[in-house]
Amino acid sequence: MKRSELEESALLQDDCLVIECDLTVIKEPLVDETVEVQVPPSNLSDNIGNLLKTGEEADVAFRVKGEVFPAHKIVLAMRSPVFKAELYGPMKEHGGNDITLQDMQPAVFKALLHFIYTDSLPSMEDLDDDDDENKEMVKHLLVAADRYAIERLKMICEGILCKSLDVQSVATILALADQHQCSRLKDACVEFLSSNGMDDVVASQGYLDLKRACPAVLVDIFERVTKSRKI
Amino acid sequence: MKRSELEESALLQDDCLVIECDLTVIKEPLVDETVEVQVPPSNLSDNIGNLLKTGEEADVAFRVKGEVFPAHKIVLAMRSPVFKAELYGPMKEHGGNDITLQDMQPAVFKALLHFIYTDSLPSMEDLDDDDDENKEMVKHLLVAADRYAIERLKMICEGILCKSLDVQSVATILALADQHQCSRLKDACVEFLSSNGMDDVVASQGYLDLKRACPAVLVDIFERVTKSRKI
Repeated sequence: MKRSELEESALLQDDCLVIECDLTVIKEPLVDETVEVQVPPSNLSDNIGNLLKTGEEADVAFRVKGEVFPAHKIVLAMRSPVFKAELYGPMKEHGGNDITLQDMQPAVFKALLHFIYTDSLPSMEDLDDDDDENKEMVKHLLVAADRYAIERLKMICEGILCKSLDVQSVATILALADQHQCSRLKDACVEFLSSNGMDDVVASQGYLDLKRACPAVLVDIFERVTKSRKI
Repeated sequence: MKRSELEESALLQDDCLVIECDLTVIKEPLVDETVEVQVPPSNLSDNIGNLLKTGEEADVAFRVKGEVFPAHKIVLAMRSPVFKAELYGPMKEHGGNDITLQDMQPAVFKALLHFIYTDSLPSMEDLDDDDDENKEMVKHLLVAADRYAIERLKMICEGILCKSLDVQSVATILALADQHQCSRLKDACVEFLSSNGMDDVVASQGYLDLKRACPAVLVDIFERVTKSRKI
C-alpha cells in the first residue's frame, strides 16, 4: 500500500493506525530436552570380569604348575561344554573343587580364564607379526580353546594366525591347524603356499618337523597347491 | 616416430621390428582376500541368559506368591550388592537357599531376573504411552531396582517413565520418584508441571493421594514451579 493511499484511507484515524495481531505461542513440553536420563552402557561383562579380578565367592581352584587360579564353576560351565561336563557331569573330575592341570602353562590358563570371563583376549588382539611371544601364546590358546570347546576363542586365534603367516611359521601352523581341525586356518596356509611358493618353506624347521610327524598332510597340501596353480 | 623414419632406421631388419617387453606380474598374497575368519559377535550375555532359561545348576530358589524361580547365587551377587549381602554376607537370609519374597509380584520378579541375567528388559523397551499395564510394570521394576541397588535398571525405568508422563500419571510418578530418590525423574515431573500447568493435575487421583501421603513434596514442587515460571 502506498503512503498516499494509506493517508486517504479510513484505516488511519486521528493520525493513528491500529494493527491487531493474534499471537499463538507454541510451547513444547520441556521434559525431553531438559531432563534426559543417560542410561550407561551394559555392564554385564564388567560384572563378570570383576568376579575374576576379585576371586570373590570362587568355588573351584585350578593348580597349574605351582600357580593357583580360583574360579567360579558356573561361569566356566556356561562358557565351555567341556568344563560343564568336568565340573558338573557324571565324568566329574576327581579331587572335587581342587583341580590340577598338567598340560598347560600358567600364562595360557590365565589368558583362557580372562577370555572365559570377559569374552576378550588380554590386550594382544593387535598382534604384531614380529612379536613371536604373542604368536606362541595365540597358538597355545588355540589348543586350549579346542581342548575346552570354546569355539569363539578358537576362531579369534585362527583369525590372528591367518594374518601372521610367514615362510618360517607356515608349516608349523599348518600342522597345528591339521591337529585341531581348524579348516579355515588350514585353507589360509594352503593359500599362502600357493601364492608364495614352497621353496623357502621347505627349508624351514617347521617343514622338517611336519614332514617327520605327519607327511600325509604334506601330500594333501602338495596336491592342492599343484591343482590351484594349474587353475 | 614417423613411418618414413622407421623404414630408414636400423631397427627394422629383414622387414621385421623386434619389440622386447619386460613383464612384471605383481601377485598379492591371496590369504587375506580369500580366507577370512569370520569371528561371531560376543556370546557372553547369551551364555548367561541360557543359564536363566534352562535353570541348570541353579543353587537358590525364590518363592514369590506361589511361584518358584530357580537362580544362581553368584550371578545375582555379581549384579546386585544387596543380593550379594543377602546371599553371601553376614546378613545372610535365613532359610539358606530357599528364599520367600513377600513384597513382590511374580511377574515383576521374573522381569527383574531377566534383566539381571541379560542386561535388558523383557521386550517392553518400546513402551507405548497408552500401555498402562507395561507402565505399571516399569514402576514396579523401578521399585525392585531400588530395593536391590541395580542402578542401570533403575535408570532405564526412570528414562521410560520420563517419556511417558501425562496429566493423569505425573503426580503418582512424582511420589514414586520422591520415595525412591530418583532425582532425574523428579526433575522431569517438575518440568512437566511447569510447562503443562497444574490445573488438570490437581484434579487427578494421583495428586489427591500425593497430597494426603506427602504434602511436603507438593510444597517443594509448587515452590519450584512458581520459581521457574518467574524466569
